[in-house]
Amino acid sequence: MDASWLDAVKWDRDGLVPVIAQEVGSNDVLMFAFMNREALARTAESSRAVYWSRSRQKLWHKGEESGHVQQVHEIRLDCDNDVVLLKVTQAGHDPGIACHTGRHSCFFQKFEAGTWQTVEPVLKDPGAIYR
Amino acid sequence: MDASWLDAVKWDRDGLVPVIAQEVGSNDVLMFAFMNREALARTAESSRAVYWSRSRQKLWHKGEESGHVQQVHEIRLDCDNDVVLLKVTQAGHDPGIACHTGRHSCFFQKFEAGTWQTVEPVLKDPGAIYR
Repeated sequence: MDASWLDAVKWDRDGLVPVIAQEVGSNDVLMFAFMNREALARTAESSRAVYWSRSRQKLWHKGEESGHVQQVHEIRLDCDNDVVLLKVTQAGHDPGIACHTGRHSCFFQKFEAGTWQTVEPVLKDPGAIYR
Repeated sequence: MDASWLDAVKWDRDGLVPVIAQEVGSNDVLMFAFMNREALARTAESSRAVYWSRSRQKLWHKGEESGHVQQVHEIRLDCDNDVVLLKVTQAGHDPGIACHTGRHSCFFQKFEAGTWQTVEPVLKDPGAIYR
């Protein structure tokens, strides 16, 4: 495939682009991660979300351990060509679990009464997800 | 106000945190930007989105030029404490215009047939927004 679409992305100084994963249907924002060029290419090829793990410094096939893969329906790019938005189905559990804490979304802390309150339930014990 | 909620945020090496702005109601992802500590504090105080402009290296009161301010209903933090999600009403135009190109959302480029296609209309000429 012609790779000019990958060249159009403005990769940051680490060769990465921030990525927002949004659930098709609910439109919930599930998570935020990064991709390098290879991760984005593989995501487009396979229609499965592949990220770059900054902590492990390697490709991270979302769901490789948990089974909670993300089927990718759309890949969007923002006006500055430096942020990617994925429209995904969060597979492996119903309702979908995108967060390593066993919650639907990673954005489960809400600012309230001057502090961060956890406002979303754990859907599955992480000990049972990662074993 | 006790500032420990600001200390809980894991600011990056530039003292910034990535921020996703999502529209209340539609749940559309409108834009992505950064905040520093002061921007987040002011956003919480005023319930108006205040970002940090990396290009201009100063606080950016969203809508200060365009009138397209964002009323903030909720501030969320992710599981790693290093990404913020705002639930906002995009004011100043109906439907809301969050993008400097005059579009509803910044994520108007869709990957299709091997390239990025513009799939969202301009709602108002940017020349008429910024003058």
